[in-house]
Amino acid sequence: MSKGKPLKNPIITALETRISANHFDAGKVMSDDQVEELIRLATCAPSAYNLQNWRFIAVRSPDAKARLQAASYGQAKVSEAAVTVIVCGQLPTHMDLEERLRPSVEAGFMPHEMAAAWTRAAERDFRGNPQRQRDEAIRTATLGAAFLMFAAEAYGLVSCPMVGFDPSTVMSEFGLAANEIPVVLVAVGSSGDGNWPQKPRLPVSQILETV
Amino acid sequence: MSKGKPLKNPIITALETRISANHFDAGKVMSDDQVEELIRLATCAPSAYNLQNWRFIAVRSPDAKARLQAASYGQAKVSEAAVTVIVCGQLPTHMDLEERLRPSVEAGFMPHEMAAAWTRAAERDFRGNPQRQRDEAIRTATLGAAFLMFAAEAYGLVSCPMVGFDPSTVMSEFGLAANEIPVVLVAVGSSGDGNWPQKPRLPVSQILETV
Repeated sequence: MSKGKPLKNPIITALETRISANHFDAGKVMSDDQVEELIRLATCAPSAYNLQNWRFIAVRSPDAKARLQAASYGQAKVSEAAVTVIVCGQLPTHMDLEERLRPSVEAGFMPHEMAAAWTRAAERDFRGNPQRQRDEAIRTATLGAAFLMFAAEAYGLVSCPMVGFDPSTVMSEFGLAANEIPVVLVAVGSSGDGNWPQKPRLPVSQILETV
Repeated sequence: MSKGKPLKNPIITALETRISANHFDAGKVMSDDQVEELIRLATCAPSAYNLQNWRFIAVRSPDAKARLQAASYGQAKVSEAAVTVIVCGQLPTHMDLEERLRPSVEAGFMPHEMAAAWTRAAERDFRGNPQRQRDEAIRTATLGAAFLMFAAEAYGLVSCPMVGFDPSTVMSEFGLAANEIPVVLVAVGSSGDGNWPQKPRLPVSQILETV
């Protein structure tokens, strides 16, 4: 090893080798603790004002998987993955913020007046602005989904973010509230056979502008 | 070391310790190569159909930073960070897909018929559906932003995703096209003094439902 290349940073390796898996080992199950650990790490994602306007529905039972698969145009990976998580974004409101920020105030690093100012700013941003609320719900849930994908990588699992589903069916089948949007599904489990490598990307010169 | 705790997986450490930095070391600059490397890793993020409907504007010059800071309610970190990236989502269209998938077909793992089927599916999803297009642009850009944040972690840098800016000013000042949405800014640089730890999160039991 001494003359070999230096080991690459594990985060870079994860970024470069992560795939959107199409095939899972349906025989591998996941414990409650493992699912909770993945979701805990997903919630390390940032959200505007630390609102944490997300909810995660872990679809694990055969019956629930069958219902979600039917709502996802029959895609088998929904059922073959050990768990498929419905990542829901919630329309943000300033009214939740005081309670969300209280732990930061009590931990001593956020001044109380700052929490009050953030609440006023959130009201200015979101109140009476349904498009901004929807955008924010999608951003927050997508950040949670990305962190969930990285949590899966950390445990040697594969994942697949999916947007091919019927939102209204998912909402009714899984009891989403009126202020919740099913933003993305993330299937997580052990890799099956036949997954592709990460698909080629456009060269950086085509998507980067420097000013 | 032999009796110490085992080293934690570096990805888990990154998830748990990443912060949304408010303070950057304004004296630290970044090379062109370093910025390109961060953006290359950001584009390892997944996107629906591998559409890669994103564009990244790296704001680095004092003049451009001043204009972006003015569009971001004067937030100093926009200028203090070595680079603040405007992550743009593009309204997706099936018309781009054949060209995007060609490298996967040429690499030999995607059958040509599958690329054609994906193009038809993307047309079904997006054509004449502006809300779905907007949602998808926000999802894609947010995934790119999340991967950019992880790329920063890999290089020992800190980052801050920001949604506190005026979208129409950003669009006009930085020449976004009509089909582009400025979804999130990501400030990246060396940490300054006085950043907070990661803010407390809700307990998993409050945000996870298992079915």
